[in-house]
Amino acid sequence: MAIIESVRTDSYRVKLEEVLSDSTHGSIPYFEFVTVRIRDADGSEGVGYTYAVNSGAPAFQVLIDGYLKDVLIGRDADTIEKLWQDMWWKIHYCGRGGHGTSAISAVDIALWDLKARRLGTPLWRLLGGFDPVVDVYAGGIDLDLSLDALIRQADGFLAHGHRAIKMKAGRPRLSEDIERVSGMRAHLGADFPIMVDANMRWSADQAIQAARALRDFNLVWLEEPTIPDDVAGHIRILRDGGIPIASGENIHTIYEFQQMIAAGGITYPEPDVCNCGGMTAFRKIAALAEANNLPITSHGAHDLTVHLMAALPNRRLMEIHGFSLDRFVAQPLRINEGLTTAPDLPGHGIELDFEHLERYRV
Amino acid sequence: MAIIESVRTDSYRVKLEEVLSDSTHGSIPYFEFVTVRIRDADGSEGVGYTYAVNSGAPAFQVLIDGYLKDVLIGRDADTIEKLWQDMWWKIHYCGRGGHGTSAISAVDIALWDLKARRLGTPLWRLLGGFDPVVDVYAGGIDLDLSLDALIRQADGFLAHGHRAIKMKAGRPRLSEDIERVSGMRAHLGADFPIMVDANMRWSADQAIQAARALRDFNLVWLEEPTIPDDVAGHIRILRDGGIPIASGENIHTIYEFQQMIAAGGITYPEPDVCNCGGMTAFRKIAALAEANNLPITSHGAHDLTVHLMAALPNRRLMEIHGFSLDRFVAQPLRINEGLTTAPDLPGHGIELDFEHLERYRV
Repeated sequence: MAIIESVRTDSYRVKLEEVLSDSTHGSIPYFEFVTVRIRDADGSEGVGYTYAVNSGAPAFQVLIDGYLKDVLIGRDADTIEKLWQDMWWKIHYCGRGGHGTSAISAVDIALWDLKARRLGTPLWRLLGGFDPVVDVYAGGIDLDLSLDALIRQADGFLAHGHRAIKMKAGRPRLSEDIERVSGMRAHLGADFPIMVDANMRWSADQAIQAARALRDFNLVWLEEPTIPDDVAGHIRILRDGGIPIASGENIHTIYEFQQMIAAGGITYPEPDVCNCGGMTAFRKIAALAEANNLPITSHGAHDLTVHLMAALPNRRLMEIHGFSLDRFVAQPLRINEGLTTAPDLPGHGIELDFEHLERYRV
Repeated sequence: MAIIESVRTDSYRVKLEEVLSDSTHGSIPYFEFVTVRIRDADGSEGVGYTYAVNSGAPAFQVLIDGYLKDVLIGRDADTIEKLWQDMWWKIHYCGRGGHGTSAISAVDIALWDLKARRLGTPLWRLLGGFDPVVDVYAGGIDLDLSLDALIRQADGFLAHGHRAIKMKAGRPRLSEDIERVSGMRAHLGADFPIMVDANMRWSADQAIQAARALRDFNLVWLEEPTIPDDVAGHIRILRDGGIPIASGENIHTIYEFQQMIAAGGITYPEPDVCNCGGMTAFRKIAALAEANNLPITSHGAHDLTVHLMAALPNRRLMEIHGFSLDRFVAQPLRINEGLTTAPDLPGHGIELDFEHLERYRV
């Protein structure tokens, strides 16, 4: 038994090395970052985190500090499924798949890390173990870049070891999107895996028009063509647009993934372990995908997600996200020929440099 | 033009006069209450509020103070639809229909109040005006009461002017629920409108069993038989259970209401103006219901909701909720022969006694 003795949260606003941009969030100069450290009575510690684009982290922190802590302290840290249910219902009123799910995610990640560290095993092994070598892609957040700058960025990704790249779409005119995708395809060659991400910019019918215009560019997927609430729209986009569809960074419950998958509105479910309910929920979403003969990809938090992907048979193309923690971790993931390897360190293996983070404290 | 000059939030934990109980939240000794006061450059003020059962209010407050204020200050208070969209997208990441929607709700209510006060008209008239006299029911929160106490409570509701009563179900054994409903039916007579609320306690199949067992008690509706995420379950419960279904206090977006209504999973959509996105969203949900030939009922916040119901053609049985603000408002709604009347005061007409609330400040 590992009795939970303390739960500590810290909140940071981390300036990005360069200002990023997409069609929904506009310019993104920083990301918000909340860490959770859970310590048990034996002195073992698990670390989790969650993050947000431009808004929301203070809500994560007050929910953890004000409510989830009460659920956790004194409980057996090994009973993650039970603790998850109790957290979910503790903040269910006005909660469900909103900021509360991110709060639960950060705690859940810390609990899984704690469990694996206590057992002295890497998470990807603990979670079932499929193959530690995972194929990845570079998630560009680059809507406002000129085509020249976009191609320079792509060359940087290639030099970094990437062999698959996602770029943003959703410019004011569709012709600009086409020009940018066309330029990237010409630069990268006919078979290079390219994904395009519209960040919910379009209506369903605009998305169908865009998908048809993009159909000849051999895209791996079109991501978030419209709002995640529009299940019927996704069905039409996938059917009439003719390009596989990814979505998930804004879908926050197993029930919503279930609906979208069962409806046939999605090709690549793309949960974010930091906002879908943590590792516990991510694995259930992956199981839903597998049972429906779908691959699972991921959004964000690649240092954590690599362990999930390394434990899943139906994983495909993990995102290496633009909000990188490389500056703050001892051993960042290395990319080589489009692949990375889940670390063989206990837990998730991320040692956060809290001293370096200190300058970003909120 | 009414330029927004300030947005003030205050947070309270209000002790209830008696401890309430339901099958999901257990015992409920207090409710959390966040007020929003929006003042424009002319010195006019609108007041909104939201609330939560047992958890969540600090999240509402930090989202308003940290993010929504920035959207609002300096903007034209009359452009509520535009401000609503900007608020929604400001906190969309990890937000959508969670705690963020309650934060938006409180602001939206204050904006509508401000608009009506500036125009010197009651909200129910501003919103279209149907009939200020609204039929209501007493929303009992009473799962743990003995049958005797339940009947005494019902007698109190009758003496207070009520002619329709909701009671809780979801006791550990279904036979207890049946006994309680049977006792209430015997006490109140064959045609007295009784509703039963299970607060999401059951699986879909348990709910069907319960609905069948309750079918001969002539209930107006069975409420929240299962979790709101289970749309397919609602369809089955409604079809196979044979009792009209109400749900909505835990449904927080127009999209989710649309799905549930379009699927045929619900008879009485029951939004809560304090967590569905405020008056702006409540009216859209009512329009969805009307277009689908459904009545709309309500959850909570009757002092605000009476203006919405008084402006809608398809309203039916507004809840008079157990979390009453009567202690804190100058002129609480009066109930007579099962009816109440929307006040003919400017705005929503609620003058909150902030001095009295002070003792409950968080």
